[in-house]
Amino acid sequence: MNTMKKLVFGIDIGGTNTAFGLVDAKGEIFGESAISTKSYMKYDDYPRYIEDLAKAMKTLIDSVGFNFELVGIGIGAPNANYYQGTIEIPSNMWKYSDEQIAAGMREEDRNFNFAEDLGKHFLNVPIYITNDANAATIGEMVYGGAKGMKDFIMITLGTGVGSGFVANGEMIYGHDGFAGEFGHVIVERGGRECGCGRKGCLEAYASATGIKRTAFELMATMSDPSPLREYTYDQLESAILYQYAVKGDPIAKECFRVTGQKLGYALADIVTVTSPEAIFIFGGLAKAGDLIMNPIKWYMEENMLITFKNKVKVLPSELQNKNAAILGASALVWQAK
Amino acid sequence: MNTMKKLVFGIDIGGTNTAFGLVDAKGEIFGESAISTKSYMKYDDYPRYIEDLAKAMKTLIDSVGFNFELVGIGIGAPNANYYQGTIEIPSNMWKYSDEQIAAGMREEDRNFNFAEDLGKHFLNVPIYITNDANAATIGEMVYGGAKGMKDFIMITLGTGVGSGFVANGEMIYGHDGFAGEFGHVIVERGGRECGCGRKGCLEAYASATGIKRTAFELMATMSDPSPLREYTYDQLESAILYQYAVKGDPIAKECFRVTGQKLGYALADIVTVTSPEAIFIFGGLAKAGDLIMNPIKWYMEENMLITFKNKVKVLPSELQNKNAAILGASALVWQAK
Repeated sequence: MNTMKKLVFGIDIGGTNTAFGLVDAKGEIFGESAISTKSYMKYDDYPRYIEDLAKAMKTLIDSVGFNFELVGIGIGAPNANYYQGTIEIPSNMWKYSDEQIAAGMREEDRNFNFAEDLGKHFLNVPIYITNDANAATIGEMVYGGAKGMKDFIMITLGTGVGSGFVANGEMIYGHDGFAGEFGHVIVERGGRECGCGRKGCLEAYASATGIKRTAFELMATMSDPSPLREYTYDQLESAILYQYAVKGDPIAKECFRVTGQKLGYALADIVTVTSPEAIFIFGGLAKAGDLIMNPIKWYMEENMLITFKNKVKVLPSELQNKNAAILGASALVWQAK
Repeated sequence: MNTMKKLVFGIDIGGTNTAFGLVDAKGEIFGESAISTKSYMKYDDYPRYIEDLAKAMKTLIDSVGFNFELVGIGIGAPNANYYQGTIEIPSNMWKYSDEQIAAGMREEDRNFNFAEDLGKHFLNVPIYITNDANAATIGEMVYGGAKGMKDFIMITLGTGVGSGFVANGEMIYGHDGFAGEFGHVIVERGGRECGCGRKGCLEAYASATGIKRTAFELMATMSDPSPLREYTYDQLESAILYQYAVKGDPIAKECFRVTGQKLGYALADIVTVTSPEAIFIFGGLAKAGDLIMNPIKWYMEENMLITFKNKVKVLPSELQNKNAAILGASALVWQAK
C-alpha cells in the first residue's frame, strides 16, 4: 500500500505575478512561491516563461523537505479553456510587438497550449486549467462553504466580475468551455461602456472599477459635501470608498447600496434559471461585509420570483481570507479525481 | 433473453385535458388516449382523477394488441417537482372551494403526491414527473435535434414562456427542482405586469398573450391603418397576428420584430452564463418560422459578448410537428435509464 503523502500544485496566473503552492486534499499548503508574469509580457517571452515557471516549481518541490507523490497540477488563469487546456487571447500577457502586428500576426491567433507546454516538464502528471473564477468556485466546493452542495453560484467581485456555476454537482463549462461570464449580463441596456465593447454589463457597475464609476456619478447627482470630492478619478479606489462608508459618508454608503442593487437584480434573474442552494460572494468588494451583502440580499429578495423567495442563501466565501487563488487552482485536481 | 417490446407511458397533464400514449425508445407512439382534466377541477376531485386516469391508461394497455413490458411512466405537468414526485400549488387544477378556504385551508398546502398516488395503480413501475417545459427539453434530447448534445437550451413559447437547460448532458433541476423559469427573467424593469405578480418578465412580452399585448401597444404608438384595429383585446390571438404579418401588415410584422428582440436580448444574457451549443425554439409562436426566428437571431447576435458571437445555433424544435408533449413526458423514462 502506497502511504506516501499526495500533493498537487495549485498555480494562480495573474497579470502581475504567477503564484503557486503545493496543497494536500484538505487544503493545507506545504510551501508557496511565485515568479513574475509581468517580466514575460511579450509574445516571444512565452517559451521562457514556461521554462522558468517549471524550474521554480521544481525548486519548490525540492524545498518541501519530505517525499511526496505529485498527483496533478491545477491552474487558474484568465481566458483559460478547460476543454482545450489552452489560454486563448489573454489581454495582459504574451502580447505581440508592434513589429509582429505590422508583419501580419493576428490577435486571434494568440492561442497558447499551456497544459501541453508545461506538461513537457512534468511527464505523466495530469494538468487541469480553467479561468480564475471557475477555480475559485471549485475551491469553494472542495475546501469551503459549498462542500456537499450540488447546485450553487460563486460570484467574484474583483477588478472584474467573475462567476462560476455548479449544477448537479458539476461545474458548468458550457459547450465551448467559456461559460460563467455573469459579469457580462446586461443590467442597464445602453448603460455604461464596458471593456468588452458593449454597454451596460454588470461588470461596469459591480466591479472595483464599477463602484468607483458609481462614486463619480453620485458626486454629480448628490449635493452632500464629502471628502470623496478631493480625489481624482485615478486616485480613488474601492477600498477608500469602504473606509468612508464605514465612517458614514452618505455618498460612499450610497455607492454600496447601488452596487448591491445591481447585483441583487441580476442574481434574482439567474436564480430563476439555475435555482441554486446558495450564492457565495468572494473578492475585494466582498470584504465590505454587510455594507455590500445586505443590499445584495435585499434587492435580490425584493425582485425574486415567488417560487424562490427566501430559499437561496447569500454567503461570504469561506476562502475569503485564505490563499483562495492557489487553493482554487489546486482543487481542480482533487475535483477531477 | 427477454425480447419483449419495451414501452413507456408519456402523460401530458394540461389544464383542459390529460393526454397519454405508449411510446417506444425511438419515439414511436403505439396508441394514444386522453381524459378531461377540467372535469376534475376541485380539490376533492383529485382522488377520482387519479383513479379514472389509471383506469383509462389500463384500457389503452389492453387495446395495444400485443404483449409488451411497461418499463416506466413519464409525466409532464405544470408545477411538477422532479425530486419530490409532486405537483405543488397548480394554478388551474384541484382548487379549494370557497367553503374550504373559509374553513381555513391554505393555498400553499395544495401539494399532491402525484407519482406516489398514481403508482398505487402501477406497482413496481418507476414514475418520473417534471414540468412541461423540462419534459419537452428531454424530448428534444432523446428524440429530437438535441440528440448527442451536452449543453443546450429549450425555449417553449406558448401561453407562457417555459424553458429547460441542459448542462454536461444533464437537465438542470436546481436545488429545489424548479430551475428553468426563464420566462420570469426581467427584460424591462418596471415594465408590463406579469401573472407572477412582478413587472417586466420575459413572459409578459414573448408569450402568446405577450405578443397580443405588444399588438395593442403598437396600435397606440403606430398610425398605420390595419385590420387589427377591428379586433377587441379578447378577440385577438397570436395566430391572427401571424396571418396578417404574412400578408404584410406593418403592425403585425412589427409585433414579431419586438417579440424577437426581447427574446434575443434575454438569450444573449443567458448564453454568457451557460454557453450552450444550441437553443431550440418550440411552441405556438415558433410556428411563425422566420418571422420570429430571424429577429431572435439578429438581436441575440447584435447583443452577444464577443466570446460567443456566431457560435450558438438557434433552431426550431424537431418535435414541433409531432406529439411533443407525450413524447417529452415519455423521454423522462428513457433518459433516467
